[in-house]
Amino acid sequence: MTLPKLQVALDNNTIPSAIKSIKALGDIVDIIEVGTILCLAEGSEAIKVMRALYPDKIILADTKCADAGKTVAQNCRDAGANWMTVICSASIETMIAANNVVEELQVELYGDWTFEQAALWYQSNIKQVVYHQSRDALLSGKSWDDSDLEKIKRLIEMGFRVSVTGGLDVNTIKLFKGLDVEAFIAGRSLRDAEDPKQAAIEFKQEIQRVFS
Amino acid sequence: MTLPKLQVALDNNTIPSAIKSIKALGDIVDIIEVGTILCLAEGSEAIKVMRALYPDKIILADTKCADAGKTVAQNCRDAGANWMTVICSASIETMIAANNVVEELQVELYGDWTFEQAALWYQSNIKQVVYHQSRDALLSGKSWDDSDLEKIKRLIEMGFRVSVTGGLDVNTIKLFKGLDVEAFIAGRSLRDAEDPKQAAIEFKQEIQRVFS
Repeated sequence: MTLPKLQVALDNNTIPSAIKSIKALGDIVDIIEVGTILCLAEGSEAIKVMRALYPDKIILADTKCADAGKTVAQNCRDAGANWMTVICSASIETMIAANNVVEELQVELYGDWTFEQAALWYQSNIKQVVYHQSRDALLSGKSWDDSDLEKIKRLIEMGFRVSVTGGLDVNTIKLFKGLDVEAFIAGRSLRDAEDPKQAAIEFKQEIQRVFS
Repeated sequence: MTLPKLQVALDNNTIPSAIKSIKALGDIVDIIEVGTILCLAEGSEAIKVMRALYPDKIILADTKCADAGKTVAQNCRDAGANWMTVICSASIETMIAANNVVEELQVELYGDWTFEQAALWYQSNIKQVVYHQSRDALLSGKSWDDSDLEKIKRLIEMGFRVSVTGGLDVNTIKLFKGLDVEAFIAGRSLRDAEDPKQAAIEFKQEIQRVFS
Protein backbone atom coordinates (compact mmCIF):
# COMPACT_ATOMS: atom_id res chain seq x y z
CA MET A 1 0.00 0.00 0.00
CA THR A 2 1.53 3.30 -1.10
CA LEU A 3 0.81 6.41 0.93
CA PRO A 4 -2.27 8.42 -0.07
CA LYS A 5 -1.44 11.57 -2.00
CA LEU A 6 -2.36 15.08 -0.92
CA GLN A 7 -4.35 17.17 -3.39
CA VAL A 8 -5.14 20.83 -3.00
CA ALA A 9 -8.39 22.06 -4.51
CA LEU A 10 -7.90 25.55 -5.89
CA ASP A 11 -11.50 26.66 -5.60
CA ASN A 12 -10.44 30.25 -5.98
CA ASN A 13 -12.43 32.78 -7.95
CA THR A 14 -9.52 34.32 -9.82
CA ILE A 15 -6.15 33.29 -11.23
CA PRO A 16 -4.21 35.77 -9.05
CA SER A 17 -5.90 34.39 -5.94
CA ALA A 18 -5.10 30.83 -7.05
CA ILE A 19 -1.48 31.77 -7.66
CA LYS A 20 -1.28 33.22 -4.18
CA SER A 21 -2.67 29.95 -2.75
CA ILE A 22 -0.44 27.63 -4.75
CA LYS A 23 2.72 29.60 -4.13
CA ALA A 24 2.64 28.44 -0.53
CA LEU A 25 1.43 24.90 -1.20
CA GLY A 26 2.67 23.80 -4.59
CA ASP A 27 5.97 22.30 -3.46
CA ILE A 28 4.29 20.20 -0.76
CA VAL A 29 1.15 18.80 -2.38
CA ASP A 30 1.17 15.93 -4.88
CA ILE A 31 -1.77 17.01 -7.04
CA ILE A 32 -2.86 20.53 -8.01
CA GLU A 33 -6.58 20.69 -8.66
CA VAL A 34 -7.91 23.56 -10.71
CA GLY A 35 -11.28 23.61 -8.95
CA THR A 36 -14.67 23.83 -10.62
CA ILE A 37 -15.20 27.39 -9.42
CA LEU A 38 -11.87 28.45 -10.93
CA CYS A 39 -12.43 26.49 -14.17
CA LEU A 40 -15.77 28.24 -14.65
CA ALA A 41 -14.51 31.66 -13.61
CA GLU A 42 -11.21 31.77 -15.52
CA GLY A 43 -11.47 29.02 -18.09
CA SER A 44 -8.57 26.90 -19.26
CA GLU A 45 -6.19 29.83 -18.74
CA ALA A 46 -6.15 28.75 -15.09
CA ILE A 47 -4.85 25.32 -16.08
CA LYS A 48 -2.18 26.89 -18.30
CA VAL A 49 -1.00 29.12 -15.46
CA MET A 50 -0.67 26.18 -13.06
CA ARG A 51 1.20 24.16 -15.67
CA ALA A 52 3.59 27.06 -16.22
CA LEU A 53 4.21 27.31 -12.48
CA TYR A 54 4.52 23.55 -11.86
CA PRO A 55 5.76 21.77 -14.99
CA ASP A 56 6.13 18.42 -13.23
CA LYS A 57 3.12 18.13 -10.90
CA ILE A 58 -0.09 16.24 -11.60
CA ILE A 59 -2.64 18.87 -12.58
CA LEU A 60 -6.30 17.95 -12.34
CA ALA A 61 -9.02 19.95 -14.08
CA ASP A 62 -12.12 19.54 -11.95
CA THR A 63 -14.55 20.26 -14.74
CA LYS A 64 -17.22 17.83 -13.48
CA CYS A 65 -17.93 17.38 -17.18
CA ALA A 66 -21.44 16.15 -18.00
CA ASP A 67 -21.42 16.18 -21.79
CA ALA A 68 -19.21 16.85 -24.79
CA GLY A 69 -16.53 14.77 -23.11
CA LYS A 70 -14.12 14.69 -26.02
CA THR A 71 -14.04 18.47 -26.57
CA VAL A 72 -13.83 19.39 -22.90
CA ALA A 73 -11.09 16.82 -22.37
CA GLN A 74 -9.12 18.03 -25.38
CA ASN A 75 -9.29 21.63 -24.14
CA CYS A 76 -8.10 20.55 -20.69
CA ARG A 77 -5.30 18.47 -22.11
CA ASP A 78 -4.21 21.21 -24.50
CA ALA A 79 -4.03 23.57 -21.52
CA GLY A 80 -1.75 21.19 -19.67
CA ALA A 81 -3.98 19.08 -17.42
CA ASN A 82 -3.07 15.45 -16.76
CA TRP A 83 -6.35 14.39 -15.22
CA MET A 84 -9.91 15.65 -15.37
CA THR A 85 -13.23 14.85 -13.72
CA VAL A 86 -16.65 13.92 -15.05
CA ILE A 87 -19.86 13.91 -13.06
CA CYS A 88 -21.33 10.51 -12.24
CA SER A 89 -24.59 11.32 -14.03
CA ALA A 90 -22.79 11.79 -17.35
CA SER A 91 -23.53 9.10 -19.91
CA ILE A 92 -21.01 6.32 -20.35
CA GLU A 93 -20.42 7.65 -23.88
CA THR A 94 -19.34 11.01 -22.43
CA MET A 95 -17.04 9.31 -19.94
CA ILE A 96 -15.42 7.09 -22.56
CA ALA A 97 -14.94 10.04 -24.92
CA ALA A 98 -13.16 12.01 -22.21
CA ASN A 99 -11.19 9.01 -20.98
CA ASN A 100 -9.80 8.50 -24.47
CA VAL A 101 -8.24 11.97 -24.41
CA VAL A 102 -6.81 12.67 -20.95
CA GLU A 103 -4.19 10.63 -19.13
CA GLU A 104 -6.67 9.66 -16.42
CA LEU A 105 -10.30 10.36 -15.76
CA GLN A 106 -12.01 10.59 -12.39
CA VAL A 107 -15.75 10.11 -11.86
CA GLU A 108 -17.13 12.48 -9.24
CA LEU A 109 -19.66 10.71 -7.05
CA TYR A 110 -22.54 13.05 -6.31
CA GLY A 111 -26.16 12.18 -5.62
CA ASP A 112 -27.72 8.83 -6.44
CA TRP A 113 -25.04 6.90 -8.29
CA THR A 114 -25.13 3.11 -8.01
CA PHE A 115 -22.57 0.34 -7.78
CA GLU A 116 -24.00 -1.06 -11.01
CA GLN A 117 -23.00 2.19 -12.74
CA ALA A 118 -19.60 2.01 -11.08
CA ALA A 119 -19.09 -1.50 -12.46
CA LEU A 120 -19.81 -0.17 -15.94
CA TRP A 121 -17.28 2.65 -15.49
CA TYR A 122 -14.65 0.17 -14.39
CA GLN A 123 -15.36 -2.13 -17.32
CA SER A 124 -14.95 0.94 -19.53
CA ASN A 125 -11.39 1.39 -18.30
CA ILE A 126 -12.14 4.25 -15.91
CA LYS A 127 -10.07 3.56 -12.86
CA GLN A 128 -10.54 6.55 -10.56
CA VAL A 129 -13.50 7.90 -8.60
CA VAL A 130 -13.82 10.78 -6.17
CA TYR A 131 -15.99 10.17 -3.13
CA HIS A 132 -17.58 13.38 -1.98
CA GLN A 133 -19.21 15.06 0.84
CA SER A 134 -20.86 17.95 -0.97
CA ARG A 135 -19.65 21.33 0.22
CA ASP A 136 -23.22 22.50 0.45
CA ALA A 137 -24.26 19.33 2.30
CA LEU A 138 -21.42 19.94 4.75
CA LEU A 139 -22.55 23.53 5.22
CA SER A 140 -25.95 22.17 6.17
CA GLY A 141 -24.40 20.01 8.89
CA LYS A 142 -23.76 16.58 7.32
CA SER A 143 -20.38 14.88 7.81
CA TRP A 144 -18.48 11.60 7.27
CA ASP A 145 -19.98 8.45 8.74
CA ASP A 146 -19.67 4.65 8.58
CA SER A 147 -21.87 4.38 5.50
CA ASP A 148 -19.43 6.65 3.63
CA LEU A 149 -16.48 4.52 4.71
CA GLU A 150 -18.27 1.31 3.71
CA LYS A 151 -18.93 2.66 0.23
CA ILE A 152 -15.33 3.78 -0.16
CA LYS A 153 -14.15 0.32 0.90
CA ARG A 154 -16.45 -1.34 -1.63
CA LEU A 155 -15.22 0.92 -4.44
CA ILE A 156 -11.61 0.11 -3.56
CA GLU A 157 -12.45 -3.60 -3.56
CA MET A 158 -13.93 -3.17 -7.06
CA GLY A 159 -10.48 -1.99 -8.16
CA PHE A 160 -10.96 1.78 -8.18
CA ARG A 161 -8.40 4.24 -6.97
CA VAL A 162 -10.58 6.36 -4.69
CA SER A 163 -9.90 9.95 -3.69
CA VAL A 164 -11.94 11.49 -0.91
CA THR A 165 -13.01 15.06 -0.33
CA GLY A 166 -15.38 17.25 1.58
CA GLY A 167 -14.68 18.95 4.89
CA LEU A 168 -11.35 17.18 5.36
CA ASP A 169 -8.79 18.53 7.77
CA VAL A 170 -5.78 17.06 9.47
CA ASN A 171 -8.02 15.61 12.21
CA THR A 172 -10.24 13.62 9.85
CA ILE A 173 -7.43 11.71 8.09
CA LYS A 174 -7.41 9.00 10.74
CA LEU A 175 -11.06 8.13 9.99
CA PHE A 176 -9.78 6.50 6.79
CA LYS A 177 -7.13 4.30 8.45
CA GLY A 178 -6.94 0.91 6.77
CA LEU A 179 -8.48 2.14 3.51
CA ASP A 180 -6.19 2.32 0.50
CA VAL A 181 -7.10 5.93 -0.35
CA GLU A 182 -5.62 7.39 -3.56
CA ALA A 183 -5.63 11.02 -2.43
CA PHE A 184 -7.00 13.29 0.24
CA ILE A 185 -8.38 16.44 -1.30
CA ALA A 186 -8.37 19.55 0.84
CA GLY A 187 -9.38 23.05 -0.11
CA ARG A 188 -9.98 25.73 2.45
CA SER A 189 -8.34 23.83 5.29
CA LEU A 190 -5.10 24.30 3.34
CA ARG A 191 -5.65 27.55 1.45
CA ASP A 192 -7.17 29.45 4.35
CA ALA A 193 -4.81 28.14 7.03
CA GLU A 194 -2.85 30.77 8.90
CA ASP A 195 0.32 29.13 7.55
CA PRO A 196 -0.76 27.14 4.45
CA LYS A 197 2.66 25.54 3.90
CA GLN A 198 2.81 24.34 7.48
CA ALA A 199 -0.78 23.06 7.21
CA ALA A 200 0.17 21.04 4.11
CA ILE A 201 3.24 19.64 5.87
CA GLU A 202 1.08 18.59 8.82
CA PHE A 203 -1.40 16.91 6.44
CA LYS A 204 1.44 14.96 4.86
CA GLN A 205 2.86 14.02 8.28
CA GLU A 206 -0.54 12.81 9.45
CA ILE A 207 -0.98 10.75 6.27
CA GLN A 208 2.45 9.22 6.92
CA ARG A 209 1.56 8.52 10.56
CA VAL A 210 -1.82 6.91 9.86
CA PHE A 211 -0.99 4.94 6.71
CA SER A 212 2.55 3.63 7.25
CA MET B 1 -49.94 28.48 -24.31
CA THR B 2 -47.17 30.88 -25.30
CA LEU B 3 -44.84 29.92 -28.12
CA PRO B 4 -41.71 27.99 -27.15
CA LYS B 5 -38.57 30.09 -27.19
CA LEU B 6 -35.52 29.46 -29.31
CA GLN B 7 -32.20 29.14 -27.50
CA VAL B 8 -28.83 28.93 -29.16
CA ALA B 9 -26.15 26.93 -27.37
CA LEU B 10 -22.79 28.57 -27.89
CA ASP B 11 -20.68 25.47 -27.44
CA ASN B 12 -17.76 27.21 -29.02
CA ASN B 13 -14.20 26.76 -27.83
CA THR B 14 -13.21 30.41 -27.88
CA ILE B 15 -14.80 33.82 -27.35
CA PRO B 16 -13.98 35.03 -30.89
CA SER B 17 -15.64 31.95 -32.36
CA ALA B 18 -18.70 32.49 -30.13
CA ILE B 19 -18.89 36.13 -31.21
CA LYS B 20 -18.83 35.05 -34.83
CA SER B 21 -21.70 32.63 -34.15
CA ILE B 22 -23.83 35.03 -32.18
CA LYS B 23 -23.37 37.93 -34.58
CA ALA B 24 -25.56 36.09 -37.08
CA LEU B 25 -28.05 34.67 -34.58
CA GLY B 26 -28.33 37.06 -31.66
CA ASP B 27 -31.14 39.20 -33.04
CA ILE B 28 -33.31 36.16 -33.84
CA VAL B 29 -32.95 33.85 -30.85
CA ASP B 30 -34.66 34.44 -27.51
CA ILE B 31 -32.03 32.98 -25.21
CA ILE B 32 -28.24 33.05 -25.57
CA GLU B 33 -26.61 30.09 -23.89
CA VAL B 34 -22.96 30.31 -22.97
CA GLY B 35 -22.37 26.58 -23.36
CA THR B 36 -20.47 24.36 -20.97
CA ILE B 37 -17.54 24.00 -23.35
CA LEU B 38 -17.24 27.79 -23.62
CA CYS B 39 -17.73 28.35 -19.87
CA LEU B 40 -14.90 25.92 -19.14
CA ALA B 41 -12.64 27.19 -21.92
CA GLU B 42 -13.02 30.95 -21.43
CA GLY B 43 -14.53 31.35 -17.99
CA SER B 44 -17.00 34.05 -17.04
CA GLU B 45 -15.39 36.44 -19.52
CA ALA B 46 -17.55 34.70 -22.14
CA ILE B 47 -20.70 35.67 -20.23
CA LYS B 48 -19.48 39.27 -19.94
CA VAL B 49 -18.85 39.47 -23.67
CA MET B 50 -22.34 38.19 -24.50
CA ARG B 51 -23.91 40.62 -22.04
CA ALA B 52 -21.97 43.48 -23.62
CA LEU B 53 -23.18 42.45 -27.07
CA TYR B 54 -26.80 41.79 -26.06
CA PRO B 55 -27.78 43.93 -23.07
CA ASP B 56 -31.44 42.90 -23.19
CA LYS B 57 -31.44 39.18 -24.05
CA ILE B 58 -31.79 36.32 -21.60
CA ILE B 59 -28.28 34.95 -21.09
CA LEU B 60 -27.94 31.45 -19.69
CA ALA B 61 -24.70 30.16 -18.21
CA ASP B 62 -24.69 26.42 -18.81
CA THR B 63 -22.32 25.63 -15.98
CA LYS B 64 -23.98 22.29 -15.12
CA CYS B 65 -22.94 23.20 -11.58
CA ALA B 66 -22.57 20.22 -9.23
CA ASP B 67 -21.31 21.90 -6.06
CA ALA B 68 -20.50 25.29 -4.55
CA GLY B 69 -23.79 26.55 -5.93
CA LYS B 70 -23.71 29.92 -4.24
CA THR B 71 -20.23 30.89 -5.44
CA VAL B 72 -20.67 29.64 -8.99
CA ALA B 73 -24.05 31.39 -9.22
CA GLN B 74 -22.66 34.65 -7.86
CA ASN B 75 -19.84 34.59 -10.41
CA CYS B 76 -22.32 33.95 -13.23
CA ARG B 77 -24.63 36.68 -12.04
CA ASP B 78 -21.80 39.16 -11.59
CA ALA B 79 -20.75 38.44 -15.16
CA GLY B 80 -24.23 39.21 -16.43
CA ALA B 81 -26.07 35.90 -16.67
CA ASN B 82 -29.81 35.78 -15.95
CA TRP B 83 -30.13 32.02 -15.69
CA MET B 84 -27.76 29.17 -14.96
CA THR B 85 -27.88 25.39 -14.92
CA VAL B 86 -27.12 22.78 -12.29
CA ILE B 87 -26.67 19.09 -12.91
CA CYS B 88 -29.46 16.81 -11.63
CA SER B 89 -27.06 14.87 -9.43
CA ALA B 90 -26.17 17.98 -7.43
CA SER B 91 -27.44 17.95 -3.86
CA ILE B 92 -30.62 19.87 -3.11
CA GLU B 93 -28.51 22.18 -0.92
CA THR B 94 -26.37 23.10 -3.94
CA MET B 95 -29.45 23.75 -6.04
CA ILE B 96 -31.11 25.92 -3.42
CA ALA B 97 -27.90 27.88 -2.86
CA ALA B 98 -27.64 28.63 -6.58
CA ASN B 99 -31.36 29.31 -6.97
CA ASN B 100 -31.14 31.96 -4.27
CA VAL B 101 -28.63 33.93 -6.33
CA VAL B 102 -29.62 33.81 -9.99
CA GLU B 103 -32.90 34.96 -11.49
CA GLU B 104 -33.80 31.44 -12.53
CA LEU B 105 -32.18 28.06 -12.22
CA GLN B 106 -32.49 25.11 -14.58
CA VAL B 107 -31.82 21.52 -13.60
CA GLU B 108 -30.12 19.58 -16.39
CA LEU B 109 -31.53 16.08 -16.63
CA TYR B 110 -28.74 13.62 -17.34
CA GLY B 111 -28.53 9.98 -16.35
CA ASP B 112 -30.67 8.36 -13.69
CA TRP B 113 -32.69 11.19 -12.18
CA THR B 114 -36.09 10.31 -10.72
CA PHE B 115 -39.48 12.00 -10.55
CA GLU B 116 -39.17 11.88 -6.74
CA GLN B 117 -36.08 14.09 -7.05
CA ALA B 118 -37.93 16.33 -9.47
CA ALA B 119 -40.75 16.76 -6.95
CA LEU B 120 -38.19 17.89 -4.37
CA TRP B 121 -36.71 20.42 -6.81
CA TYR B 122 -40.14 21.82 -7.52
CA GLN B 123 -40.98 22.06 -3.81
CA SER B 124 -37.68 23.93 -3.43
CA ASN B 125 -38.90 26.61 -5.81
CA ILE B 126 -36.88 25.42 -8.81
CA LYS B 127 -39.20 25.79 -11.76
CA GLN B 128 -37.16 24.91 -14.84
CA VAL B 129 -35.61 21.69 -16.10
CA VAL B 130 -33.74 20.85 -19.29
CA TYR B 131 -34.53 17.51 -20.87
CA HIS B 132 -31.53 16.17 -22.73
CA GLN B 133 -30.43 13.82 -25.27
CA SER B 134 -26.75 13.65 -24.48
CA ARG B 135 -24.56 14.82 -27.33
CA ASP B 136 -22.38 11.78 -26.86
CA ALA B 137 -25.43 9.49 -26.72
CA LEU B 138 -26.65 11.03 -29.96
CA LEU B 139 -23.24 10.49 -31.54
CA SER B 140 -23.59 6.82 -30.65
CA GLY B 141 -26.92 6.65 -32.50
CA LYS B 142 -29.64 7.27 -29.88
CA SER B 143 -32.45 9.74 -30.65
CA TRP B 144 -35.83 11.07 -29.42
CA ASP B 145 -38.57 8.51 -28.79
CA ASP B 146 -41.98 8.19 -27.10
CA SER B 147 -40.46 7.53 -23.68
CA ASP B 148 -38.68 10.91 -23.90
CA LEU B 149 -41.91 12.67 -24.84
CA GLU B 150 -43.81 10.95 -22.00
CA LYS B 151 -41.26 12.12 -19.45
CA ILE B 152 -41.36 15.66 -20.80
CA LYS B 153 -45.16 15.64 -20.55
CA ARG B 154 -45.03 14.42 -16.97
CA LEU B 155 -42.53 17.13 -15.99
CA ILE B 156 -44.74 19.78 -17.55
CA GLU B 157 -47.73 18.39 -15.65
CA MET B 158 -45.72 18.69 -12.44
CA GLY B 159 -45.49 22.41 -13.15
CA PHE B 160 -41.99 22.65 -14.62
CA ARG B 161 -41.08 24.83 -17.55
CA VAL B 162 -39.21 22.28 -19.67
CA SER B 163 -36.60 23.10 -22.28
CA VAL B 164 -35.45 20.36 -24.63
CA THR B 165 -32.14 19.79 -26.30
CA GLY B 166 -30.03 17.26 -28.10
CA GLY B 167 -29.84 16.72 -31.84
CA LEU B 168 -32.68 19.16 -32.57
CA ASP B 169 -33.12 20.61 -36.01
CA VAL B 170 -36.01 22.26 -37.78
CA ASN B 171 -37.43 18.86 -38.72
CA THR B 172 -37.66 17.56 -35.14
CA ILE B 173 -39.74 20.48 -33.75
CA LYS B 174 -42.99 18.84 -34.80
CA LEU B 175 -42.28 15.80 -32.60
CA PHE B 176 -43.11 18.03 -29.63
CA LYS B 177 -46.48 19.27 -30.92
CA GLY B 178 -49.00 19.57 -28.10
CA LEU B 179 -46.32 19.83 -25.40
CA ASP B 180 -45.93 23.19 -23.69
CA VAL B 181 -42.18 23.38 -24.26
CA GLU B 182 -40.34 26.35 -22.69
CA ALA B 183 -37.52 26.50 -25.22
CA PHE B 184 -35.92 24.54 -27.99
CA ILE B 185 -32.16 24.54 -27.62
CA ALA B 186 -30.12 24.17 -30.77
CA GLY B 187 -26.38 24.33 -31.18
CA ARG B 188 -24.63 23.16 -34.29
CA SER B 189 -27.80 23.03 -36.38
CA LEU B 190 -27.84 26.83 -36.02
CA ARG B 191 -24.17 27.74 -35.65
CA ASP B 192 -22.93 25.48 -38.41
CA ALA B 193 -25.74 26.16 -40.87
CA GLU B 194 -24.71 27.54 -44.22
CA ASP B 195 -26.79 30.64 -43.41
CA PRO B 196 -27.17 30.68 -39.61
CA LYS B 197 -29.54 33.66 -39.56
CA GLN B 198 -31.84 32.02 -42.09
CA ALA B 199 -31.67 28.74 -40.13
CA ALA B 200 -32.75 30.57 -36.96
CA ILE B 201 -35.61 32.27 -38.83
CA GLU B 202 -36.77 28.89 -40.14
CA PHE B 203 -36.64 27.43 -36.62
CA LYS B 204 -38.81 30.29 -35.36
CA GLN B 205 -41.23 29.88 -38.26
CA GLU B 206 -41.53 26.17 -37.62
CA ILE B 207 -42.15 26.78 -33.90
CA GLN B 208 -44.86 29.27 -34.91
CA ARG B 209 -46.39 26.78 -37.36
CA VAL B 210 -46.43 23.82 -34.98
CA PHE B 211 -47.42 25.57 -31.75
CA SER B 212 -49.93 28.23 -32.77
